[in-house]
Amino acid sequence: MLNLFLQGVSATIVMTAEVITIGDEILYGHITDTNTQYISEELSKIGIRTVRKSAVGDTEEAILQILAEASSRADIILITGGLGPTKDDITKHTIAKYFGVGLVTHQPTLDQVTDFFTRRGREMLEMNNRQADVPTNAEVLLNKLGTAPGMWIAHEGKVFISMPGVPFEMKHIMQTSVIERLKQHFELPVIVHKMVHTVGLGESFLAEKIRDWEDNLPKHIKLAYLPSLGIVKLRLTAIGASSMELNNAIEHQIGKLTPLIPDYIFAYNAEGRLEAAIGRMLLHKNLTISTAESCTGGYLAHLITAVAGSSVYYKGSVIAYANEVKMALLDVKEETLAQYGAVSEQTAIEMAENVRKKLKTDVAIATTGIAGPDGGTDEKPVGTVWIGFAAGGKSFAKRYVAGTTRENNTRLFSLYALNLLRMQLQELG
Amino acid sequence: MLNLFLQGVSATIVMTAEVITIGDEILYGHITDTNTQYISEELSKIGIRTVRKSAVGDTEEAILQILAEASSRADIILITGGLGPTKDDITKHTIAKYFGVGLVTHQPTLDQVTDFFTRRGREMLEMNNRQADVPTNAEVLLNKLGTAPGMWIAHEGKVFISMPGVPFEMKHIMQTSVIERLKQHFELPVIVHKMVHTVGLGESFLAEKIRDWEDNLPKHIKLAYLPSLGIVKLRLTAIGASSMELNNAIEHQIGKLTPLIPDYIFAYNAEGRLEAAIGRMLLHKNLTISTAESCTGGYLAHLITAVAGSSVYYKGSVIAYANEVKMALLDVKEETLAQYGAVSEQTAIEMAENVRKKLKTDVAIATTGIAGPDGGTDEKPVGTVWIGFAAGGKSFAKRYVAGTTRENNTRLFSLYALNLLRMQLQELG
Repeated sequence: MLNLFLQGVSATIVMTAEVITIGDEILYGHITDTNTQYISEELSKIGIRTVRKSAVGDTEEAILQILAEASSRADIILITGGLGPTKDDITKHTIAKYFGVGLVTHQPTLDQVTDFFTRRGREMLEMNNRQADVPTNAEVLLNKLGTAPGMWIAHEGKVFISMPGVPFEMKHIMQTSVIERLKQHFELPVIVHKMVHTVGLGESFLAEKIRDWEDNLPKHIKLAYLPSLGIVKLRLTAIGASSMELNNAIEHQIGKLTPLIPDYIFAYNAEGRLEAAIGRMLLHKNLTISTAESCTGGYLAHLITAVAGSSVYYKGSVIAYANEVKMALLDVKEETLAQYGAVSEQTAIEMAENVRKKLKTDVAIATTGIAGPDGGTDEKPVGTVWIGFAAGGKSFAKRYVAGTTRENNTRLFSLYALNLLRMQLQELG
Repeated sequence: MLNLFLQGVSATIVMTAEVITIGDEILYGHITDTNTQYISEELSKIGIRTVRKSAVGDTEEAILQILAEASSRADIILITGGLGPTKDDITKHTIAKYFGVGLVTHQPTLDQVTDFFTRRGREMLEMNNRQADVPTNAEVLLNKLGTAPGMWIAHEGKVFISMPGVPFEMKHIMQTSVIERLKQHFELPVIVHKMVHTVGLGESFLAEKIRDWEDNLPKHIKLAYLPSLGIVKLRLTAIGASSMELNNAIEHQIGKLTPLIPDYIFAYNAEGRLEAAIGRMLLHKNLTISTAESCTGGYLAHLITAVAGSSVYYKGSVIAYANEVKMALLDVKEETLAQYGAVSEQTAIEMAENVRKKLKTDVAIATTGIAGPDGGTDEKPVGTVWIGFAAGGKSFAKRYVAGTTRENNTRLFSLYALNLLRMQLQELG
């Protein structure tokens, strides 16, 4: 963990942060908070350790209390939410009160807010004018995507940062102002991260395979396992003085890691979606693809087409949910369905071969299985899927067994299909 | 807001809660915390007000500090995380230390843990035995879905509840133990909630249409707007002494609300997915459906098939991402594509009509549009979509314009298609 890791390197240089969310809608569970995950992850990338996260409601008492508490514990206090124009949103006034200062209109922000309304042909109300007011001790962090400005207040060695709660506005202010300013304001360690994306091995099996390598990592490079459904990301973090040296040291370690798990790594960069990695492979090899789906019901196609630019290599899909559609649109033989069933090796192969022919693509994949909750048998329990693959001179199908919930099965089936496709594309050279 | 609402009714009966998440993985932003949203929403349903949420790391100092703080502010302290078998997980020992008590083995839990390993044929380690240890002052809340038990500690008028951080285990313990125990332990107000699900009107337009009704709600019934992409849920909450009276009072108000926005309401119950409501309509009317998708790339089919049992009414889809697939599999005429383009009323109608014929269904819907980020023109900007509909004697298409990001457009296009389908099914009577 970065926590202990940073402590280990030098206790004096580690800056600490608290992240505060203001808003009844978070407190009462009306919406999921994704802001604080983003903020603490970004802070961790530049070597700032989050020591606490808090959510409080839209009341002056609660906000004053958490500001006092947080600044007694951390160097940097990041606040999101409560900056809207309506009267529930009191963050700005409360921050001014906390510092015992008044508000002043920030003219560039007022111009921007006015322009925002003019361009949309909307009437501007007095409360919108007030969006441009900021505490007199605040420096404004421009928000080009909305009307509530970000604020930076340096006070007695601490820094208070206030941002709107709308995720894309907050991210915009983090990326255009906050990270850079924090780097300038504080003496931060140099930190370099690299991500290695893997698929096809569970966390503990992966850990087993790379244990010796992990145990022999130099002290200034740490490894984190970040698992999600079917995918495990390995994050290497190096800390030191020169980013070029750290980059080289991490690349050297990745060079030693790769041969240990060559079949499981699908990307090394930040864009870690398997479907995007496959898209790059298809583009590189100049191949087109089609899909035929039964149990995944369109989710596989959705993943592939969620990648911008996928229309270059993806032609389409037949979602043959009903057996008669498998026969009518995919020419799956009635005998095949009768003899082996819809969830079978033979059906998966026919689906893949025939969609490839019909849609005239270089390769094709097909899914047929039982997502649940009903429809399972002893022989073919819920979670069983056959993935079919077809290319020019080759076609086959492979059986997988996933879990028990319909949602997870749909996701895992699609992941199995994408991973089988990835392995085949690799073999194609 | 329930906050002010509960304060208004009777300041003395409102019980307050703090929700604490323990774990470095939340603190450093490796994973998104969805537990606290669930917990505070469930508490709010039984009239308990969350006053703060906090996340702290896996250190004894941080845990002791937050336990002391939280119990100085709230009546109920709910803790998730840090109950795993490995040495990073110190919640249980730290809770025991906080109360100055030791740990004792809870035999029924040990039996269950042993059984858990035996049934999976896995070796049980000493650290797994320790899973069954609990502080001597704790009552165990059985966890049938995992090996870490929940704990309930009543102490000086406050209640401390500790649960594992795995979401489905936490939810299981909340539903099978915590909610019922809280109702018995505290004198809580009787609270009744009803949800009205709407689609097709933005939050502010909806508020405008129902303003008089909202202003005239009796004092003991409150309304909350819960918006998400394209959908607004209205939550009615009534507080009082008799649940039957409250139910009647809410039903009476819903009876007055419905005629104000008849076209926008699609469900009244807890299952608020539009695609599930449509599934119920199709089952009720004994109709089958097929889809043809271009820009939505399978997402529409995915929504429909995510509903368990959808295979009764859903036959399949043709995802015609490429124009040649629109012609080959959906018989869209070459002249239509040449004259009007793929994103046009005519293409959408031909797609819907032809998929309906090919898949032999009663109704069909089709999507063709520009999800972005590229491919837009002045005439047809990114976010433009045509939704086609076909039934026995009727076919038409309607144009919508959504937003700018590929992901949101895919979701909104699918929502427009489902809502158009819903309106047509309503007309079919």
